[in-house]
Amino acid sequence: MATKTLAQWATNLSPSSLPASVRQAAVKSLYNYIGCAIGGSNHPAVTKAYDALSPFFGPATSSLYGSKGAVKTDAQHAALLNGIASHVHDYDDTHLATIIHPTGPVASAVLAYAEYKGSITGPEVLCALTAGIEASCKIGLAVWPEHYDIGWHITSSTGSVGAAVGVGKLMKLSEEQMAHAIGLAAVQVVGLREMFGSDTKSFHPGRAAQSGLLAALLAEKGYTSSPQALEAKRGWANVVAGGGTPKLEHYLSELGQKWEIEANAFKPFPCGIVCHPAIDGCIQLHQELQSKGLKPALIQKIEARVHPLVIELTSKRTPKDGLESKFSVFHGAAVGLLYGKAGPAQYADEVVRDQTVIDIRDKIDATADESLAADETYLTLYFADGSKLEKHTKHAVGSLEVPMSEEQLTEKFVDQAALVLSEGARQASDAAWKISEATDVAEVLRML
Amino acid sequence: MATKTLAQWATNLSPSSLPASVRQAAVKSLYNYIGCAIGGSNHPAVTKAYDALSPFFGPATSSLYGSKGAVKTDAQHAALLNGIASHVHDYDDTHLATIIHPTGPVASAVLAYAEYKGSITGPEVLCALTAGIEASCKIGLAVWPEHYDIGWHITSSTGSVGAAVGVGKLMKLSEEQMAHAIGLAAVQVVGLREMFGSDTKSFHPGRAAQSGLLAALLAEKGYTSSPQALEAKRGWANVVAGGGTPKLEHYLSELGQKWEIEANAFKPFPCGIVCHPAIDGCIQLHQELQSKGLKPALIQKIEARVHPLVIELTSKRTPKDGLESKFSVFHGAAVGLLYGKAGPAQYADEVVRDQTVIDIRDKIDATADESLAADETYLTLYFADGSKLEKHTKHAVGSLEVPMSEEQLTEKFVDQAALVLSEGARQASDAAWKISEATDVAEVLRML
Repeated sequence: MATKTLAQWATNLSPSSLPASVRQAAVKSLYNYIGCAIGGSNHPAVTKAYDALSPFFGPATSSLYGSKGAVKTDAQHAALLNGIASHVHDYDDTHLATIIHPTGPVASAVLAYAEYKGSITGPEVLCALTAGIEASCKIGLAVWPEHYDIGWHITSSTGSVGAAVGVGKLMKLSEEQMAHAIGLAAVQVVGLREMFGSDTKSFHPGRAAQSGLLAALLAEKGYTSSPQALEAKRGWANVVAGGGTPKLEHYLSELGQKWEIEANAFKPFPCGIVCHPAIDGCIQLHQELQSKGLKPALIQKIEARVHPLVIELTSKRTPKDGLESKFSVFHGAAVGLLYGKAGPAQYADEVVRDQTVIDIRDKIDATADESLAADETYLTLYFADGSKLEKHTKHAVGSLEVPMSEEQLTEKFVDQAALVLSEGARQASDAAWKISEATDVAEVLRML
Repeated sequence: MATKTLAQWATNLSPSSLPASVRQAAVKSLYNYIGCAIGGSNHPAVTKAYDALSPFFGPATSSLYGSKGAVKTDAQHAALLNGIASHVHDYDDTHLATIIHPTGPVASAVLAYAEYKGSITGPEVLCALTAGIEASCKIGLAVWPEHYDIGWHITSSTGSVGAAVGVGKLMKLSEEQMAHAIGLAAVQVVGLREMFGSDTKSFHPGRAAQSGLLAALLAEKGYTSSPQALEAKRGWANVVAGGGTPKLEHYLSELGQKWEIEANAFKPFPCGIVCHPAIDGCIQLHQELQSKGLKPALIQKIEARVHPLVIELTSKRTPKDGLESKFSVFHGAAVGLLYGKAGPAQYADEVVRDQTVIDIRDKIDATADESLAADETYLTLYFADGSKLEKHTKHAVGSLEVPMSEEQLTEKFVDQAALVLSEGARQASDAAWKISEATDVAEVLRML
């Protein structure tokens, strides 16, 4: 029943049936996504992919956001390339219960298709995005945590289904077609955690977007799949659950009751979310040091007690470049302490290799403490005179308890866009905030 | 080391280093593939996919074989569509130790790229095809049987890696680039067994071809992956092994020593290979009945003792159409007995719904016998007068012990092509046999 349940729910969802809080979460998710896609657009991974694939581009209908300026490509390649760009700085959003970054795969497909199709409204896009994100997160919950533990990159391994559902909404697929689209997406399982630290990590959500779009396109023309694609003995959930017992029925029964998009958080720092509490604490300590007139160079030792996942995922002691530094809680903490900021500019290669940063980084000890919550950290700075400074971060900024405000989201967007666009970062931000009210989203997307 | 071992071996393989028997196996595999791709080209699944995707086609460089006539599309879509066509009648080849149908994903990508690139010779294509097939089958062996048991369609789940290696050979990738291509392909795991019986089954090898091509294209431009993509704790093999212990090192150490392509068999009948022994036996019984002047209608009951996998995979008692009949040992046996033939024409919808066929089909009992080999069957026909006729098939035609001859392969090709092409089936066959000697394979492919 799970595939049918999801197809039926998604098919019946309408823009007017979204609760206001859900709609607001979708607006923020979409806005944050566009900022990230612009911010990542001039990353070498995107450039390499663009160069590799431009000989195969079809009719230019769908924009590549950001640095490629007015460049368009066919919808399938736009979904792939914007999807890569949106994730390449590890700066996107996070559904905290599953560590899924849900908007990238869904929005990359939905927007590329909307611009191709034309005359699709902002509210329709929000509805499609919401349907897709609910799909990804619910099936992700059903196989969490075993699925992630054995090594799947859960953002993309669930993202193709979300993208198919999202595009399927814009196509107004019938329930039966939607089920086929879900099945066609479910057989394209993309993303292994082994790729973290290489270009292929960001390929994952891009390819998931493209795979989901492809699934919906085929289903629209009557291509058939299994109506039990998700729940069958040899369907998606059992195959990818890694020995766990998928709880599809349970989570899908909550569709429309409990909205996962409301639990979508936005990253304040362009790196793995697990090290955000330590960075947040260090930024607060930077401010305290400043107010006391103390220089970070006076610090002799820094102790961090962190959740065990921080050590497991982000313990690169000596990152060589910006990419590796995203998997280094030590780098994030160091720039937080030194500069009071850990934005894209602080993850540039030059900063990672800066001796001042390295000196602070090497003074940091991090120990796993199983008693801590995932977004909690204790930091202690030790000074030469024997004094110390402590900071307990109970919830990091960007968590559900301390969400980023619209102003903080705008600053994040503009900071990213300013690094990529020669001008117009603020205008792009204004346009992106308004996309949800557009009568034809294609007109807005062309301006990004 | 597994990823490096495979990349190194593939990079060093040259057309002149292929043993004659390997070269001959590659020629047959390629020829058989082309016949199947032509034969499947007017199947509704291919037509639906073509209609869905034609708005996105890029520059027309690569041919769609068969019914689409002189139609070309971009190499990525050609890989997808030809890959679907090659598998849609379940008539392709089989690496018996893994039940992988290895040529579809690899050849669909290699030929589409060769035609795009131009000036690629027949021997280069054979070398690329061989490298790709060895890659797919070796990594398939490493995760067999657990990988298949939990529900992956092993043809496509290994096929993207094979396709990437094959295309990578034509690109003359460095060893490092080849390793990245393998990694990029390994994260695109396509194909669930739940889809058997729907259009999505044939989508699997097509998408694997396209995914492998994409992986090689990205790697060629420096897109990076993990150098331990296959063997890492959270790399391909461990993630997809379904609880088994992958034996990558063992099988990859045999690269170039033991050639899997030599163990590639060609299907004499367009259906799941497990029911071939029963069909072969029924065709032999048809000939005996004819020589004795006995009509099949005189048969009261037919007993078949078969390998348990036959019951597990092909026990559809009342198939509704041609597609379902491929998963019915009863249908295959019935047309074998009635017509002495089980080619594509005998799997048409009309034949499946023909009352004469249904009458015979309903007289068949099949029981699993664990003592039998996978390609062995005992058949007994019971007649109204109390007499009976028995047939023991020790090895089915198309097995390694009773391989299809070049004449049988040619008949298979021409039978398929004649159903699709208004004329020129024999000429297409002649061209396909000669592709391995071409100085530019693009010139031959245009004629198909």
